[in-house]
Amino acid sequence: MGKKEYIHIEEIGEFGLIEEIKKMFPDRRRNETLVAIGDDAAVLNIHDDFLTLLSTDNLNEGVHFDLFYTPLKHLGFKSVSVSVSDICAMNGEPLGITVSIALDSRFTVPMVKEFYEGVKIACEKYNIDLIGGDTTASYKGLFINTSIIGKVEKERVAYRHGAKPGDLICVTGDLGGAYIGLLIMQREKEVHIEAPLATIKLEGYEYPISRLLKPEARLDVIKILRELDVVPTAMIDISDGLASDLLHICTSSNVGCVIYEDKFPIDPVVYRTALLEFNLNPTTVFLSGGEDYELLFTIPEKYGPLFENHPDITIIGKILPPEEGTYMISKSGNRYELTAQGWDAFRKYRRENQ
Amino acid sequence: MGKKEYIHIEEIGEFGLIEEIKKMFPDRRRNETLVAIGDDAAVLNIHDDFLTLLSTDNLNEGVHFDLFYTPLKHLGFKSVSVSVSDICAMNGEPLGITVSIALDSRFTVPMVKEFYEGVKIACEKYNIDLIGGDTTASYKGLFINTSIIGKVEKERVAYRHGAKPGDLICVTGDLGGAYIGLLIMQREKEVHIEAPLATIKLEGYEYPISRLLKPEARLDVIKILRELDVVPTAMIDISDGLASDLLHICTSSNVGCVIYEDKFPIDPVVYRTALLEFNLNPTTVFLSGGEDYELLFTIPEKYGPLFENHPDITIIGKILPPEEGTYMISKSGNRYELTAQGWDAFRKYRRENQ
Repeated sequence: MGKKEYIHIEEIGEFGLIEEIKKMFPDRRRNETLVAIGDDAAVLNIHDDFLTLLSTDNLNEGVHFDLFYTPLKHLGFKSVSVSVSDICAMNGEPLGITVSIALDSRFTVPMVKEFYEGVKIACEKYNIDLIGGDTTASYKGLFINTSIIGKVEKERVAYRHGAKPGDLICVTGDLGGAYIGLLIMQREKEVHIEAPLATIKLEGYEYPISRLLKPEARLDVIKILRELDVVPTAMIDISDGLASDLLHICTSSNVGCVIYEDKFPIDPVVYRTALLEFNLNPTTVFLSGGEDYELLFTIPEKYGPLFENHPDITIIGKILPPEEGTYMISKSGNRYELTAQGWDAFRKYRRENQ
Repeated sequence: MGKKEYIHIEEIGEFGLIEEIKKMFPDRRRNETLVAIGDDAAVLNIHDDFLTLLSTDNLNEGVHFDLFYTPLKHLGFKSVSVSVSDICAMNGEPLGITVSIALDSRFTVPMVKEFYEGVKIACEKYNIDLIGGDTTASYKGLFINTSIIGKVEKERVAYRHGAKPGDLICVTGDLGGAYIGLLIMQREKEVHIEAPLATIKLEGYEYPISRLLKPEARLDVIKILRELDVVPTAMIDISDGLASDLLHICTSSNVGCVIYEDKFPIDPVVYRTALLEFNLNPTTVFLSGGEDYELLFTIPEKYGPLFENHPDITIIGKILPPEEGTYMISKSGNRYELTAQGWDAFRKYRRENQ
């Protein structure tokens, strides 16, 4: 056995592992398969008029969520939102979702129903059906998998790979809230563990906490784009962090990009809390926070005027030819190269458990 | 809080829990949803010509498999087979599968590749693509989820609910092998733990062990049915055990049934090992074994002659009007009511960990 036998997953990270798996499956066996691994959802060409979309996500206790501060109903809602967001990222319409859970012996029937109550609220919000799932025992911990099916007209599908130099870079909502929500909840958890009778302070932090516990997929923005008759040239949902996800688009599209710090939409509470309570640069939080489930997309420049001063969409930069690199211009006019400091489940886990 | 708060899942079992969840989602929100929870796969009517099928399965370490005696490559193959079997059970054709894994820190990159090597072999066998998946860290244990998409012509779909009195009951292959394979492996594991240097005896048991570790979905039978132009009136795959799965068909179709012990296809090694080494009645193993992933289906009586002496399909009984009950006629001519002694992950887990 060579050295190769001992490569641990943390050394190559989640993306490295996905690349290794992808390399093992170089060929498409079926004509129906347009996109397999490598975008927000698989794309199948089963029928003449629509493309079929399929995406799957794991949410694992101790890695993706902490039941100490995550109500089960919120978790059910979030599980659905995370998957709906993947269909949104293809500019598609979600149809139905399967929600599978593996449970250890802590869980009672009412707890499971509480979780599915959140699933139900989300299904109503996004107008989709719960169409299946598997319920099994686990040795230890709660494991959730969601798989979602959606559809999109062939002329409206948005991949990661279609961005062109000159396109504008747009982001929905604001970013960094979920990460600050996580820091607040971890801080309050530590306080509680050290002093169980101390008051948990959550007042004033409702927005970042809701971003963490109950994120909403931007299906509303997909409808706005449809009404405006705009098809993004590339799109991704922001789960790993803006910098990481923007670099995914640039790599897939073989382009560069520039984004402008003075355009970044950051919520005032998130901004203040990052800076004053956690001693963090709000721009770093914006670029690397992750888990906000907003959409990042590119559009031809001619559509720019449609999104100036738009309440839900902000233009933050421009796609460039590949040789110009991928960078940010700071408020003071300096150039900073973008690096993928995205959220990586394996590294995070390792860090917290060393 | 009333007594209701304390209902543990083992008290109602997996099927009870699914019923509770099903009750929470009484309405279909979308016209596309033909079948949500309650069959082997969800059935969506997205397009004119075909129905779209979607199914999902969990395979959890310590509950569904034991890495002590399960090679990762076999496990990858089995994960795909289990899902393909669900599409077969709808008389459909599988198209693509997502395979998601949650891994703890024991796992190295080559181990993950070994697992996906098995996935690849299965994808080649069933002519499907790996179209996605999620790879995440777990706190402890290996968790696998597969979600599969397939299609079936509208006039060929087979639900659980279409069986009619007079229909013949057919089963593919032979049953009980996977359960005997499990007993053999558990026995050898115990021997190994007590005496690590003792020889593990697997010679002669290749068939039941392969049934446990590397089950094959009966996509070949779906093709045979297509070639013979036969559409089953009802179909299910045998994952929980013949008795349990036949009762699912009878309940869904509101019919009774009779099956004949002297018709039961049991492999000779399985028969002998059950009887002589584990002191088990082979008929009980046949009825309740589970995990064989064969197909159970019903056909109009007129098709009977097509399946007499068929190498892959055995007629074992007949559908009856509901008032006649659900029973077996033994070799000695006695009547025994069928009970669902199917495999239930929650009860099994509880039993082994008390």
